[in-house]
Formats: sequence, structure tokens, C-alpha cells
Amino acid sequence: MKRALVTGGAGFLGSHLCERLLRDGYEVVALDNLYTGSRSNLASFSGSPAFSFVEGDVIELDRLAFGGSPLAERFDEIYNLACPASPVHYQSRPVFTTKTSVFGVLNCLSLAMRDGAKLLHTSTSEVYGDALVHPQNELYWGNVNTIGVRSCYDEGKRVAETFVADHVREFDVDVRMVRIFNTYGPRMHPQDGRVVSNFIMQALRGDDITIYGDGSQTRSFQYCDDLIDAFRAYMELPKERVRSFAAEHGLGAPVINTGNPGEYTIRELAEMTLALLPESKSRLVFRPLPGDDPKRRRPDIALARELLGWNPSVPLREGLAKTIEYFRNTQKA
Amino acid sequence: MKRALVTGGAGFLGSHLCERLLRDGYEVVALDNLYTGSRSNLASFSGSPAFSFVEGDVIELDRLAFGGSPLAERFDEIYNLACPASPVHYQSRPVFTTKTSVFGVLNCLSLAMRDGAKLLHTSTSEVYGDALVHPQNELYWGNVNTIGVRSCYDEGKRVAETFVADHVREFDVDVRMVRIFNTYGPRMHPQDGRVVSNFIMQALRGDDITIYGDGSQTRSFQYCDDLIDAFRAYMELPKERVRSFAAEHGLGAPVINTGNPGEYTIRELAEMTLALLPESKSRLVFRPLPGDDPKRRRPDIALARELLGWNPSVPLREGLAKTIEYFRNTQKA
Repeated sequence: MKRALVTGGAGFLGSHLCERLLRDGYEVVALDNLYTGSRSNLASFSGSPAFSFVEGDVIELDRLAFGGSPLAERFDEIYNLACPASPVHYQSRPVFTTKTSVFGVLNCLSLAMRDGAKLLHTSTSEVYGDALVHPQNELYWGNVNTIGVRSCYDEGKRVAETFVADHVREFDVDVRMVRIFNTYGPRMHPQDGRVVSNFIMQALRGDDITIYGDGSQTRSFQYCDDLIDAFRAYMELPKERVRSFAAEHGLGAPVINTGNPGEYTIRELAEMTLALLPESKSRLVFRPLPGDDPKRRRPDIALARELLGWNPSVPLREGLAKTIEYFRNTQKA
Repeated sequence: MKRALVTGGAGFLGSHLCERLLRDGYEVVALDNLYTGSRSNLASFSGSPAFSFVEGDVIELDRLAFGGSPLAERFDEIYNLACPASPVHYQSRPVFTTKTSVFGVLNCLSLAMRDGAKLLHTSTSEVYGDALVHPQNELYWGNVNTIGVRSCYDEGKRVAETFVADHVREFDVDVRMVRIFNTYGPRMHPQDGRVVSNFIMQALRGDDITIYGDGSQTRSFQYCDDLIDAFRAYMELPKERVRSFAAEHGLGAPVINTGNPGEYTIRELAEMTLALLPESKSRLVFRPLPGDDPKRRRPDIALARELLGWNPSVPLREGLAKTIEYFRNTQKA
């Protein structure tokens, strides 16, 4: 039985990954400090004998992996997902956010070296920052401010990629990196301030649905299950294939974008949300656009398609319906 | 008597700073792991009763500052200069390089909080990377690869700036940052692979002077004493002035460029070196230009001029003569 560690395992994406790994026959250890994750995300599978949960911080992973802890035994696969990922969360404790990225990836790299394990490290489309090219492919270097209020997340994630790339070159660690574009689904944090959760929560409460600007700015929306499929497919590949593919494409380290390239305007998203909640009394209201709102963001996923034979398959309407169902049940409970 | 800590104090710039602080009446503690620094850089002042040297790594600064160590007593000013800064050095141990930037700045920030001290953190023009605008001012966000062979230095320095900016915002630490452009002078490492030391060493040995490309690419050269003047002037300013100046200029944290905006072609530098060494038998030879060689790099120092009333004052010919003198004496010894 293969053993996997999922850092951030009680979070939105981490919990879906744990569930999937259990279904795939793994023994799974989830590590989470419950800063944005929650035990309720684990409820549907925490009773499984193949699952264990360690409440702790990835920053302290090296100190938590002592004898007797499930972290002390050998892992075959490590998935590093731990980091607050929405501005409302990551900006409230910026130094802690950057430390989570930096110490988190270093601890996971050490653990991967200890165990000879594969490591999947989750990076983000935010490494591209306020991108000057559209769509962004993996060769784009990004446009990021080092000293702004978003830097704690963006630069922490950027230097984590650097640590990964140099651990591959210097110590031959078997790492795969994924730059995740906007992803939604059940177990999103209801107060994370993102547009999907905002719209659904407003619609469920019958509040006005707030659109910033005229709603013509576009976004792409990846359903969580599609992303988890990509994680698993990437991790299944042999190290040699992962390395040679990166080299062939001129990349300094194995990294692929994952996201859904379908573009929707914010207004379309709001209207689709209301259409799925016909009983809602909410109406669309328009507010001034904040200065730093990007006009477009869309992933180029040609590399993931080629390397993984993967394609996002869940249509927005279907994923949105599942997400609404989740929020409806959560709010009742 | 004010106490100052200089990390990287046995390095090229650190040793000049120690010397200057001693002259200004400070008690000075230098911390250096001697990875690129050397005791010989300290020779002219290490006998001073106001000076102490701690051989150790800035990565371990928190563990070195125990009772009895000169690091355990309160500092008024901390200057964080520790980091290998030339590609030949920083690329030989890339993970260590990034850790030096990351753990180094975090340890210095902690020490500054412990002591209520002022911290001057040295950043670099490399945060601008392969710049798309010329000259670079402090508002430019840079163009840096996260996963290339130079990333260990560039991204480590970038995230160090982020840690500084957020420690200012979150914990009100009194920090000033300097982005240092190409600087030269006595005590440069003779094998650091930079153009000034390369040309001088080749000319002194009578070897061919190697120019990559046709030598028309330009560089700017700041003499070390000019930079030390800027450090001292910046550190003398009250915190309020430093903060308000940054805010007025739309910067998320106090940071200024320092460099010499005078532009010289590489060919001019080679010819000037030979003119200062008329006895040299060296001739200029031209080799193919490596792919990643920037065509131009020139600092915009308007902010430093305005804030510090500072201007680089040492002409290239004069600084070059002093540097040649230094290398001549070193090679004899």
C-alpha cells in the first residue's frame, strides 16, 4: 500500500486530493494547521482506517516528524498544498504567508530526500502576476511587485519554485510543479472573497450580487476534480519523462499550468449563478472596479495536454451546480 | 558608543563598511562565514579594540547570538550584506545561496526587533533581472525567471525584499533597502568572474584581455566608497523621513537604487585598464557573446539623489587605478 502525505490536507483542494488518494488505495496522512482548512472538510473520509490527520504547521514539519508520528514513516508521494491562497487570508498575516511557502517547500523537499519520495509542489498562476502576455504559458517570467501587498503570496510562491528547481539540479529530487489557475468547487472557503463563493453566498442569502466594473472582464474557472485528475496523472509519470519533457520545452524545472481555458465574463458567471438558483431574490448591482483588477486571465494548458493527455472536462454550469449544492447544505447545517 | 553589526563583514563591501564605521566611532561586529569573504580583508583594522569578528553563517545568526557572544549584546544598527554576489560563487551552491538571502534577512529582521535597531538591507539590481525598461527606477517590477540558473540569487533577493516590506507593514521594523548596481574596488574577489576583476587580472598577468562580442555593450561602474557613503547617509535619516519618502513615491517599502549612471562600453573599460597598466603585454581578443548577456544596464538614481543628497563622485579612471593598485599588491604578496 502506497503512503502519501498531503500538506494542507484539510483545505479546499487538499481534502479533495485526500479523498481521491484514499479511493485510489493509498494510505493518506493529511497535515494542516486549520488556519483556512477545517475538520469538516475531512468528515466524509476521516473514519477510513487508511487515513490519519496531523494538526500542525508545514513550517514545523521537520519538528513534527518524530518517532511515533505518522510523519516519521516513509512516504512514497508528497503533495505540498499548504498555503493560504486567497487575498483576504494571505494578506491578514503576510509574513506568515511567505514563511509558509518558503519553509513549507523546504521541509517537503527534505522529506522527499529522506524518503526518496516523489514530490508534487503546487505553485500558482500568481507567479505570472499582472501578466503582460495572454494567455500565459510556462515560459513567461511574470510581472510581480516585490514590495506590494500581494507580494507575500506571489514572491513566496516564486522563490518556492526556485528552491524546487535548484533541488532538482543540485540534489536530483523528483519534483513536479503545477501552476494552478483559478479553481472552484465544494469546500471552497465561504469567506475567501473570491468571485465564485461571493456570488453563490450572495445569491443564497438573497443579497445583491456585486459586480465590479461593467462585468465584461473575463475569468477562467477550473473545477476542482479536473485539477485533482491532473495532479494524479502528473505524479504517475516516471521521473525521466517529467525531466526530459521540461528540458525539451526549455524549462529550467518540471512545471505545467493547469486551469480551464474557457473564458467567461464576470457578468455571465453572475447570471449563470442566478439561473441555477431560480428561487433567489438577488439582483445584479454594479460597483466601481478596483485599480488592480486584471482584465483577463487565461491559462495556456498546451503542455499539460501534451504531457498528461489531460483536459479539463467539467463544464462551468455543472461544476457551479455542485458548488451551489455544497454551499446550500453547509449554510443549512 | 554606537554598536553596529555587519553581516558579510569580511567580504568586499562589508569590509569597507566596517572600516568606515570604525572611523565614524562605532563599535563594530562583523559576521562572516568566509565563503567568499576573507580575513585578509580585515587586516587593516582587525587590531582595533572597537572591532570584533565572529566566524559564522548569517543562516545561523539566531543560534550564534547566545550569551557571551558579541552578537548577544544590543545593536543600534544592523547592515545585512551577507550573500555570495557573483554568478561563479552563487551558482556553485544555489540552494545555499537562496537560503542565505532568506534566512539571513529573517534573522536580521528578528535581531532588529530584539534590539529596536535600524536595519539596512542590501538588495541588488538583479531583482530587475533582464530588464525591459532602461534605466531602471525603483518602481520597475523586474523580469526574472523563477526556475533558471540565476534564479537562486535573483529570487532569493526578491523574496528578501518582500520579507522586509511586510515586516515594515506588520511589525513596524525600521528598515532601509538599497538595490546595489555593479560596484567595484579594492578587495573584490580576484576570481569572481566579473569584468573589472577579470580585465585587471588578465592585464597584470599579461594574458589576453577577453571581450565577449564586439565590446559595444555598456555597463555602469560604481566605486565602493561611493556606495558606502550612500549606506551611511541612508542610515542617518530618521525613520519617519524614510517612510514618508517611500510613500510619496508610491513604493511599498523604503528602497533606493545606488549605482553610478555613467555608461562605458566594455571595450572602453578594457582600454582604460590597459592605459593604466602601460607595462602590460596584454592584447584585446574578442570572443562570441553568451546568450544571456544584457546589452545595457544603467541605474536611475534620482531617488537616492533626492533623499540622500548623494551622488557618486569617484571617476572610473581614479577608482580603476586604486583597484589595480590593490590587485598588484595582492598578487605580489
